[in-house]
Amino acid sequence: MADPVAPVLLALAAILAGAKLGGDLAERIGQPAVLGELVVGILLGNLDLVGVPWFRGVASDHTIDVLARLGVVLLLFEVGLESTVGDMLKVGGRSLLVAVLGVVTPWVLGWGVGALLLPDASPYVHAFLGATLTATSVGITARVLKDLGRAQSPEARIILGAAVIDDVLGLVILAVVAGVITSAERGSGISYGAVAVILAKAVVFLGGALVLGVAVSPRLFGLAGRLRGSGLLLTTALVFCFTLAYLASAVGLAAIVGAYAAGLVLEEAHYVDFPRQDERRLGDLVRPIGTLLVPVFFVLMGMRVELRSFAHPEVLGLALLLTLAAIAGKQACALGGLGAPLDRLSIGIGMIPRGEVGLIFANLGLSLTLHGERIVSPAIFSGLVIMVVLTTLITPPALKWSLARPAG
Amino acid sequence: MADPVAPVLLALAAILAGAKLGGDLAERIGQPAVLGELVVGILLGNLDLVGVPWFRGVASDHTIDVLARLGVVLLLFEVGLESTVGDMLKVGGRSLLVAVLGVVTPWVLGWGVGALLLPDASPYVHAFLGATLTATSVGITARVLKDLGRAQSPEARIILGAAVIDDVLGLVILAVVAGVITSAERGSGISYGAVAVILAKAVVFLGGALVLGVAVSPRLFGLAGRLRGSGLLLTTALVFCFTLAYLASAVGLAAIVGAYAAGLVLEEAHYVDFPRQDERRLGDLVRPIGTLLVPVFFVLMGMRVELRSFAHPEVLGLALLLTLAAIAGKQACALGGLGAPLDRLSIGIGMIPRGEVGLIFANLGLSLTLHGERIVSPAIFSGLVIMVVLTTLITPPALKWSLARPAG
Repeated sequence: MADPVAPVLLALAAILAGAKLGGDLAERIGQPAVLGELVVGILLGNLDLVGVPWFRGVASDHTIDVLARLGVVLLLFEVGLESTVGDMLKVGGRSLLVAVLGVVTPWVLGWGVGALLLPDASPYVHAFLGATLTATSVGITARVLKDLGRAQSPEARIILGAAVIDDVLGLVILAVVAGVITSAERGSGISYGAVAVILAKAVVFLGGALVLGVAVSPRLFGLAGRLRGSGLLLTTALVFCFTLAYLASAVGLAAIVGAYAAGLVLEEAHYVDFPRQDERRLGDLVRPIGTLLVPVFFVLMGMRVELRSFAHPEVLGLALLLTLAAIAGKQACALGGLGAPLDRLSIGIGMIPRGEVGLIFANLGLSLTLHGERIVSPAIFSGLVIMVVLTTLITPPALKWSLARPAG
Repeated sequence: MADPVAPVLLALAAILAGAKLGGDLAERIGQPAVLGELVVGILLGNLDLVGVPWFRGVASDHTIDVLARLGVVLLLFEVGLESTVGDMLKVGGRSLLVAVLGVVTPWVLGWGVGALLLPDASPYVHAFLGATLTATSVGITARVLKDLGRAQSPEARIILGAAVIDDVLGLVILAVVAGVITSAERGSGISYGAVAVILAKAVVFLGGALVLGVAVSPRLFGLAGRLRGSGLLLTTALVFCFTLAYLASAVGLAAIVGAYAAGLVLEEAHYVDFPRQDERRLGDLVRPIGTLLVPVFFVLMGMRVELRSFAHPEVLGLALLLTLAAIAGKQACALGGLGAPLDRLSIGIGMIPRGEVGLIFANLGLSLTLHGERIVSPAIFSGLVIMVVLTTLITPPALKWSLARPAG
């Protein structure tokens, strides 16, 4: 009686143990835990080079893939919960300027790197490469600032506000680029009308989710608060998150866009009167589910890096140039701080890490095809992962250094 | 770009929303929430009768099935966490006697019902039917006693202790019966040697897991406590649980046996010094994951009840006789209370509910085959689910009544 859950249990045990050991080593050398999870994934996924192919099978298992995708849906929901729609409206001009500069410049630079190093690839590949460089990782940025005790500084508020807008801008860009590629795949070529429709869909979905969500969610939680039973706060939040994530996917956006919007919409005020004695803050309730599923995403991402592809020198060149474009591109953010007594260098450095969002983009690219070829080949994927690893690696020491400089 | 997580998100949202609405209705009429989850599952799964086949597809989806199985692994881990190996050793003679009487009698009665109503089925089917009647549902029993404010009475301690032993006895019986069927399926016939090997495996695994687990787990948590990172307590516990569940499956037992053993082994003393400020009690950390996954199991169980099979009168007859055997069988438990000033009737009634463990047995039977035929046919499965529904339904009012009688 082969139990279909048995191989999944073994894979989860190995992934979780590896993630925590890798995270521990990363933190011991002063790096974020996510870096260690990626590296452990790279090591496990490439054990087939030394005759242990089991993890290569795990990396391509459908159920593990769905668990990882559930993990990243929950991660973006968690990140979204840390901000509110109000926060986004309040950060106003300066954060918006920082965000736009920090999206446009790396996109252009990334597009240029693609055109330079992959002249035979289609412009879609170049545009996608640029898009993968746009989004700042809210999680890593916030965690580094918190670890350094600077989460309440004006620079931190601008960085975090811009990172929030960045995420949305980056996700819209991704949706546009992915949608354009999908249109082209269907043979309809580049259609500015199609771009407009995709953009409109993305904006209408996000706007609708945020506006309707803010209006609907207090009533939803009000109704759910009258139900009897246990775990109602968490369950209601999960149903809301999963529904928005599904709807985002249904209109052609990534599921994580909906999950992130769901997190932004939900505010403590909506459920503070939830009449349950054993309920805690929603973030505390979502976190244990993330503890189980989020590392599956990062370890699996690492497992999909094929070290064989590093044998090609153009991957290393691509990785290096992408990393430079990613770092240099975000330094344009400093211009957003002009005209105020701010530590502009720290703003630029704080926007560098790409982390999970860059990996999500890269992963999405793996599943996009154009005329039978993947938009993101294993080689490009490896280059992007190296870029994510390097930008994640460089930020903590760089930010620590720039914030420690004399004020001015 | 079809995201494979999108249909899973929609199914989870529907299942969770249905589970909570069903649970609310059940609690409003004084019944346990699990009953409402089952009924909602039955309704959703049979919507194909009115032209909505989508949930029938969900009921047979591989990923949803694995999520449900993960849910029940976590449920048994949670139930196991509520007791310790020490509790099991302390309950001693009286609980053991109650447990053995409450296992043997329903097994014999269930076997007899099978032989009476299904004379053409193999004796394996009869034995399996009997086995499904053996285990008391710890969760439902404990919850009813708690709801009635009697969790600390001597009767409650005996019932809960016996229910714990019952679970283990029932799981061993299940392993033996399932193992014997698997041996027969391989054409080796009934072999007393094989039974002895299966029994030895089960006992050695459980004994080994408990003895080695108690010795190893404090060291494991001691080592994990020295790691850096977040979520380490929960992750270490999950790795321990998943590993034991996988090992149980690897030696031919059900994965849930290992998960339950893992829960029994882990005690607060093992991780009370865990040097993390944000860590809470392990049960509180596991619960949110259960909140997501456990209802998937119960709703899916309900969805697998095919109302079409109720059209056959022999299902209703079988269901009714099984229910009578299940109730009458547990009244033998009252004999375990002889010779002490105990409310023996309440002990017998408190042992009635079958709940999740009965469903787990029934579900396992669906995947066991003998000579190409399933041990538990859809009709038998429906009969067992009706038995679970009825025993779950009858316990709260009956126990309330018997405990309210004048003492003596």
